[in-house]
Parts: sequence; C-alpha cells; structure tokens
Amino acid sequence: MALKTGRGAEAPPFIVMDIIAAANRREAARAPGDPRTIRMEVGQPGTGAPAGARDAAMRALAAGAPLGYTEIFGLPSLRARICRHYADWYGADVPASRIAVTVGASGAFPLAFLAAFDEGDRVAMAAPFYPPYANILTALGMRPLLLECDAATRFQPTVAMLERLDPRPEGLLIASPCNPAGTMLHDDEFAALGAWCTRNGVRLISDEIYHGLQYGGGLSTAATMPDAIVVNSFSKYWSMTGWRIGWMVLPQALIRPVERLAANLFISAPQISQVAAEAAMDCGAECEANKAAYARSRALLLEELPRAGFDRLSPAEGAFYLYADVSALSNDSEQFCQKMLAECGIAATPGIDFDRARGQRFVRFSYCGPEADMAEAAARLKAWRRA
Amino acid sequence: MALKTGRGAEAPPFIVMDIIAAANRREAARAPGDPRTIRMEVGQPGTGAPAGARDAAMRALAAGAPLGYTEIFGLPSLRARICRHYADWYGADVPASRIAVTVGASGAFPLAFLAAFDEGDRVAMAAPFYPPYANILTALGMRPLLLECDAATRFQPTVAMLERLDPRPEGLLIASPCNPAGTMLHDDEFAALGAWCTRNGVRLISDEIYHGLQYGGGLSTAATMPDAIVVNSFSKYWSMTGWRIGWMVLPQALIRPVERLAANLFISAPQISQVAAEAAMDCGAECEANKAAYARSRALLLEELPRAGFDRLSPAEGAFYLYADVSALSNDSEQFCQKMLAECGIAATPGIDFDRARGQRFVRFSYCGPEADMAEAAARLKAWRRA
Repeated sequence: MALKTGRGAEAPPFIVMDIIAAANRREAARAPGDPRTIRMEVGQPGTGAPAGARDAAMRALAAGAPLGYTEIFGLPSLRARICRHYADWYGADVPASRIAVTVGASGAFPLAFLAAFDEGDRVAMAAPFYPPYANILTALGMRPLLLECDAATRFQPTVAMLERLDPRPEGLLIASPCNPAGTMLHDDEFAALGAWCTRNGVRLISDEIYHGLQYGGGLSTAATMPDAIVVNSFSKYWSMTGWRIGWMVLPQALIRPVERLAANLFISAPQISQVAAEAAMDCGAECEANKAAYARSRALLLEELPRAGFDRLSPAEGAFYLYADVSALSNDSEQFCQKMLAECGIAATPGIDFDRARGQRFVRFSYCGPEADMAEAAARLKAWRRA
Repeated sequence: MALKTGRGAEAPPFIVMDIIAAANRREAARAPGDPRTIRMEVGQPGTGAPAGARDAAMRALAAGAPLGYTEIFGLPSLRARICRHYADWYGADVPASRIAVTVGASGAFPLAFLAAFDEGDRVAMAAPFYPPYANILTALGMRPLLLECDAATRFQPTVAMLERLDPRPEGLLIASPCNPAGTMLHDDEFAALGAWCTRNGVRLISDEIYHGLQYGGGLSTAATMPDAIVVNSFSKYWSMTGWRIGWMVLPQALIRPVERLAANLFISAPQISQVAAEAAMDCGAECEANKAAYARSRALLLEELPRAGFDRLSPAEGAFYLYADVSALSNDSEQFCQKMLAECGIAATPGIDFDRARGQRFVRFSYCGPEADMAEAAARLKAWRRA
C-alpha cells in the first residue's frame, strides 16, 4: 500500500542549492589547466567568522565548557550584547526580554509565522523575494501574497500597492536591504509601511539580515515598532552562515507564545554558536574590512558589468547582490546561467528562484566572494560578450 | 488596533523548562551552607561532548575552516559515518542517500511531519510521551492521537490498541527507549508495530534518540523498514545536547521532498557541530563509560527509591529515566515536585508534562547527572520520607 505524503512534500526547490551543486560538479571535473569556477551564486561570505568569534569558540572548548542546552531564548550575556547592538547602531532602547536567539534566521521564520498567523492567512511581500519566505509559509498552510515590484520602486513594496489589497492581508514581510535585488527601503518609505501596518492591524515582519551591509543612506529597524517582529542573523555582516545563529526582536505580546513554540520546535540554538556570536559583535574592525571589500567589488561590477552587456542593474544599495535584467540577452535565465557556467566558469543564480512569474528575465550576481574573483569575473564576462 | 496572534501562539508550555528555571532560581538563592540542588529534571547528560568531538571542533577552528553552509543533508563524510554506524550497531545496510543530518532531533520532527502528513491528519502515539511530539504536530495543524498506556504494556503502544482505532490514523510515532518511562519495545513488539503500519498504510516515525542507552535486551531500528522515518540525535548517547545535531533515515520516496523542505526551513545543520558529531562516533569508549555510569545510577536508584516510598517504578529498560507512580504519596505531582525541590533540593519533572490526563500521579526522575548526586538524592529522599 503506497503511503501518502504531505502537502509539505511538494515545497518547491530552493534552486540556488541546485546551482551550488552544479558549480561543485564543474569544479570537481575541471582539468588542472582550466579556469576556476567563480562563485557568484551564493549568498555566503567566503570569509568565515571573525577571528574573535573563532577564538571565543576555541576558548570555550579548551575550557571544557559543557555546551549543553541554553535557556530557550539563549545565553543572557548574548541577549544583553544584542541589546547593546541596538543602542550602538540605531540609538534604540530594546530590552533583553524582547530578544530571542534563534537557529539562524531560518529558525526565526517558522516561529514568527506560527506565532502571528493561522492557516490560510495571507502574508504580503515583494516579488522578487528570498524563496524560503514563501516556501515556509506554504509549508505551514499560509499564503504568500506577491506584490510584483520592479525597478520603478527599486523592487520594494509601497503603501500604494498595499492599499490596492482587498481584503487586507494578515501580514507584511519586508526586507531592507533585500535579497535578490540588493535594494533598500529609504527611511521615509520604511516608516510609511510601518505606519500603514499599524493603521490596518497588519503584522509587520522585518527581515533585517543584511543590516550593516548598506552603502550609503539610512538604516531603519522595525525593532522600535511595538507590534513588529524583527528577524536578524549573524550570517551576513558577521559572516557566520554555517554557525546557524540569528535572533528575533519580539513584540511584548508574542514573547511568551514564541518562547513556548521555540521550546517545542528548537529547544535552544547551538551553544558554541551563541558563544562565538557574542564575541563576533565585538569584531567591528574585521566586519567593516569585509564590508569595504564588498563595497570595492560592488563599485567595480557596477562599472564593468554594463560593459559586458549587463546594463540594467538594480541600484545595489545594500547586501551583496546585483540583480541584472538580462532580457536583452535571454528570455530564459536558467538556460543563460547554465551557459554562463559552462562557457565562462561563472556561477550565478537565475531570477526564477526569486520570482517565478518574471524571473526568466533576471540573473542575481552575488559579490561577497574574494575581490580578485570579482575582477576576474568582470574580465571573463566582457571577453564572453565579445566572443 | 490589537493584532491577531496565530493558533501556534497557544502551544502549551514544555513544563520541564519552567522546572529548570525554578531549580536555577533555588540554586542562585541558596545560602553557602545549604545543600546543593540535585538536578534530576533534565534529560541532558552533564558530561558534555566526548573529548574526540571537542578536539575535532578545535582542530577545525584552528585550521581556519570556513565553516559555511554544508550541503542541505550535511557533510558527505558525516553521512557516510552514520551509514557505518548502522552497519556496526545493527548489521544494517543503509545507503548514505537516505541519511539527512538535521538541527537535532528537534529539527527532524517538523521535516518528518510536513513531508508525511497534512493538516488534520492524526498521528498516534503512546501517552505518556515527549511533549514536543504533540506540540509540534499541533503547531503544524496536525492532530496527536493519544494511546493511553500504562505499566501493563510498559507504557508502550500495542497492535491491539491500534486495531481499535477507527478510522486508522495517518501516522504512528514510537520511541524505544522512550521518554519519560524509560521502557522499550521488545524486538517482537517493534516488528509487530512495523508490520501493522505496513499492512494499514500508516506512516511509522521511529524516534531512536535514546538508542545506545539500553540496559540489556535487543535494540530494533526502523531504518530497515522501507517506508518508516527514523529520527535520531547526537544529544543523548553522544552527550551533545547543546550542539543541536541529529539525523533522519528517510524512505526513498521522501528523500527529495525532505531535502526541499530542509533547504527552505533550515538550509543546513551547524557545520562545527557536524564536524564534532562525526568525531564523536569514534569515541565509543568514552560514551560506553558514560553509559556504565548511568547503569550504576540506575541500579542504585532501582534499589533505593522503593525504600523512600517510590515503589512503583517503570521497568527502566533504557534511556536514563525512572517514571515513578507517586499516587500513594500525592495526587498532584506538580505540587509534589515543588515540595520536593523546596524541602530536599531535588528537582524532578511532574508527569503532567508528559501526560495531561494522568500525569498528576507520576514523577520522572532523570539519572544522567553525576553518579555522586544520584546517591545523595537517594539518601535525601529516604531521610525526607522518614521525617
């Protein structure tokens, strides 16, 4: 008797993972003299955790710390350090009671969604978007409501788009800087979206995982809004992807509910990662040096990519992504990326991962890899276009 | 305008976490001369990860390994090592393609449930049970179906109980050794439940997190059953709770679906924990020494607790729990545990965490703490009863 599978079993793939595998295969099969594969498909800094974070982890191991479960919401010292971060970066007074340390931002989203929404609830978000937003919502029986955004609004949602929704959605999910477009909500836009949510009783979830990686302009946090849920992570600015460590800032009313959910779903985040993350927050110089490298790669690619025919680029205000409209070059970005990988040895992500409806016109280039690779990529792409 | 919260926000608390906090408070407030708090409420070995596991983590850190995301299902070397574990322990041939490394067993359950079941589906399990089973199912819109078990079946479900279910449930969740009762399904019982699931098209999920911690008798795994999902973890036998690292063995048909779900929900498990876990599997002598200590504590408590009035104990065939029927002493085990903590300085978990209907008659004692503490606990309890 064939067994049933759940609806969750039909979650769409997160296509970038398949591209990573294809790039790995190319690299494994490469002859010694052939050019290396340049990795522009990953949203993962190549730098690894700051030295201070690694040292703290090594010290904890050497000291024989038991490294058992922590409190559900994490080590008190880490929660306090995150509060200080809000004071330092935003001048905001966020009490430690509102901080929940999570297993990465990935671990935060199910908690946020389950605490705030029910099956069938609609959560609005810009398209293009980070695919797990929609895939997690769908797996939980909730409904992503895509707001088609384009270069006209820097791929960000607007109050006008929300006003057109009838009925109102139960939630709004925003990200600034965002993935894949690398654009930001400017301070007035951010505030307007927050005010619209408050006026309309819509739960705002603000993904702030790329905070710290902005190249000019302001930086707004929803941590100061009383009903919003903030999701953040040590993966990007602090370069700690594989440590699986992030946090939420919770509205007062959701602290106990999320704590109950987290106790059941996660127990607690990995302790060694919590120890390393706390130390990482004191590694500002190293993180700023990484950011300066991204800024140089960004400047170089913004200048060179148009010369290789990628002349319709998103504004690249933050994160480490360039979202290129390649419709002049291809109407099948998946095939285009395969060809680019085969012929140039450059891995990038087709837009369909982020926007099923219109993504065949777009390619996302990540520029968090080594600076020399980014320069080499620009040279290869220019040569490819001339060939 | 007050914002709605989701149904998930009403997840019941995982009461043991509150008891841990109460025990922490007692210990923090304790005067220097007062007796220490003895921790028998936690399902967490006090020993920490094996030395070889810590060393491997330190070596990876010292070598500057980037420790980024791994493949979704984990490091190939760890998956291969887990296969070898199935050969070594069970003589079973489990291919690496069926192994998914997860963020602890906690990270495995949502993947298993979402891949196998839909909202409204009923998953049968013994009561008493590990509370997150039911709480995760409920948060995902599924329905735990409790099979009231008692000493007559060693707190384990039977085919006869399942035969009485009409309609059949969509799933059956078993655990052997189990928490809180510490009892096991004997090989013939395990096989009979598996065969019943196969005959009836019911998805079997086997929680094998306490494997390795059995004190005589056989040990059956569902990894050899083609449609079952096995959940396991490095938390117990390998003493790595806070590292948040576990694994699943998946049926062929669920490999791709669970991979898609995991990419969206978790990306991958913490890399440093994967490195440590792989090394832990080669630390057999240290793990067996821990187990020998549990066995000595178990023998001592099985002899001494009856002398303190706890004379109705579960058979204690595995894990590191004694589930005591305290109905001769109290009909309110929550209050009884508070009194025991206040008067004896011994923290234990009231049965209501595991069985809302009948748990007021039971207390769970965990014996994975230091051996000397277990002896001291027995002495204090005997003195308390005489007082």
